[in-house]
Amino acid sequence: MGDIKGGDFPAHTFAVRVYIEDTDLGGIVYYANYLKFIERARSEWVRAQGMDQGLLRTQTGVMFVVRRVEADYLRPAHFGDLLEVRTALIALGGARIILQQDIWRGESRIFAARVVLVCLGADGHAVRLPEPMRALLA
Amino acid sequence: MGDIKGGDFPAHTFAVRVYIEDTDLGGIVYYANYLKFIERARSEWVRAQGMDQGLLRTQTGVMFVVRRVEADYLRPAHFGDLLEVRTALIALGGARIILQQDIWRGESRIFAARVVLVCLGADGHAVRLPEPMRALLA
Amino acid sequence: MGDIKGGDFPAHTFAVRVYIEDTDLGGIVYYANYLKFIERARSEWVRAQGMDQGLLRTQTGVMFVVRRVEADYLRPAHFGDLLEVRTALIALGGARIILQQDIWRGESRIFAARVVLVCLGADGHAVRLPEPMRALLA
Amino acid sequence: MGDIKGGDFPAHTFAVRVYIEDTDLGGIVYYANYLKFIERARSEWVRAQGMDQGLLRTQTGVMFVVRRVEADYLRPAHFGDLLEVRTALIALGGARIILQQDIWRGESRIFAARVVLVCLGADGHAVRLPEPMRALLA
Repeated sequence: MGDIKGGDFPAHTFAVRVYIEDTDLGGIVYYANYLKFIERARSEWVRAQGMDQGLLRTQTGVMFVVRRVEADYLRPAHFGDLLEVRTALIALGGARIILQQDIWRGESRIFAARVVLVCLGADGHAVRLPEPMRALLA
Repeated sequence: MGDIKGGDFPAHTFAVRVYIEDTDLGGIVYYANYLKFIERARSEWVRAQGMDQGLLRTQTGVMFVVRRVEADYLRPAHFGDLLEVRTALIALGGARIILQQDIWRGESRIFAARVVLVCLGADGHAVRLPEPMRALLA
Repeated sequence: MGDIKGGDFPAHTFAVRVYIEDTDLGGIVYYANYLKFIERARSEWVRAQGMDQGLLRTQTGVMFVVRRVEADYLRPAHFGDLLEVRTALIALGGARIILQQDIWRGESRIFAARVVLVCLGADGHAVRLPEPMRALLA
Repeated sequence: MGDIKGGDFPAHTFAVRVYIEDTDLGGIVYYANYLKFIERARSEWVRAQGMDQGLLRTQTGVMFVVRRVEADYLRPAHFGDLLEVRTALIALGGARIILQQDIWRGESRIFAARVVLVCLGADGHAVRLPEPMRALLA
């Protein structure tokens, strides 16, 4: 991942309840839906930093897109489960953020993902993270 | 709707945050996703009654299915909105429940739905609601 | 529905295969997903008229939004089912289109919906349908 | 990935049209939905082999679950795009299948995924792939 400085941001936690919409015919959470759960957690993590993704985009023209996901499905989740998404900053580069996002059910880790996000400017090219966000994360 | 007795069950409320997964290219919540929001509220309403849909199904063989939805889209919802689903029992028949499920954003009602649910037995035919559930709702 | 003229537009048909993503823990298609199926059919119906929704929006500023849906769930659909969405124009008003969109599996109608769409201008207010589209539908 | 033999199964191709349901407020396909596209392709790949996932499960008790996904998002997809999912068998182990599933738009590869699937028996433990399936894939 190049010359990215490591970070030791304390983990952010976010609760997710599993509803019928999340399940499939196997009676478990459909595999794509875990990516929804961790995206909700990212949005709440940004909100918890006091940042507004919408304003950020309007005022600075930048937005974040997912560039890569590595996901391990460790145990299935079921309807009614109360899950916890734990998000930690792994690395902070010029235009890039790497997060570890795991999902736990009680004492059991059921899903683990490494997510690479890139900061894009209005023209769609990678740009350096805005300083206010960098200051919050550094 | 035939000989269905009216009820005046107090409304159940449930909060929903709008995430990116819920939006579409128009920048608003995709129309099918409101049905997810109200289904989450129904699941929480059942849970709030102290009932367990999974157990109900295992122990009595019955499940609920949606038979009809009438939905009015009054105002769009956007990313980051905090919405409230208000669910009220409109009528309780032998095998049928009719709910009014509206979604509010602050003082503004943005979505209104009338939902008809039918209680099905293990063989897929309509059956009378189990008494414990009937007692709770009556 | 006021002074809306009836139309007898020939029905448009569109095939949908049911995948795992569409199902829920009951082993059947989740109720919100039928609204996705009929929206795909509307998009293909517009495409079949030689219209480009994206261009329409860019060039005229108008877009369509769903204002009301009445949906009857007649029979469940299952993984692997090959369904057919049949779309017919029911009425064409100044700013409004009413469609009947039914879903069939072989000889069996499993879902029936009445959908009211409204044409909105760039300012979010209802506007008269653009003439090229009106000409095609009339 | 251990003692898994390589395979050179010819790629299976499957067309996907992007609909409004697939997009998000950024005007592009929401990142979780690419996992739906490649799962549709896996279902059609199995169907093209003359296998019936439902029957397989009923008759042998086995089912496949996704154990790991590595996904690279190379370029965004938009409403109306006609995409092609190309699926190739990378390795075939005792209880495990590794697939490469890329998505192309014309001459441009926009998404690339490595997917590890595991064959589970009725008790939820990994089991050797059923011989008929093994014969088809070997």
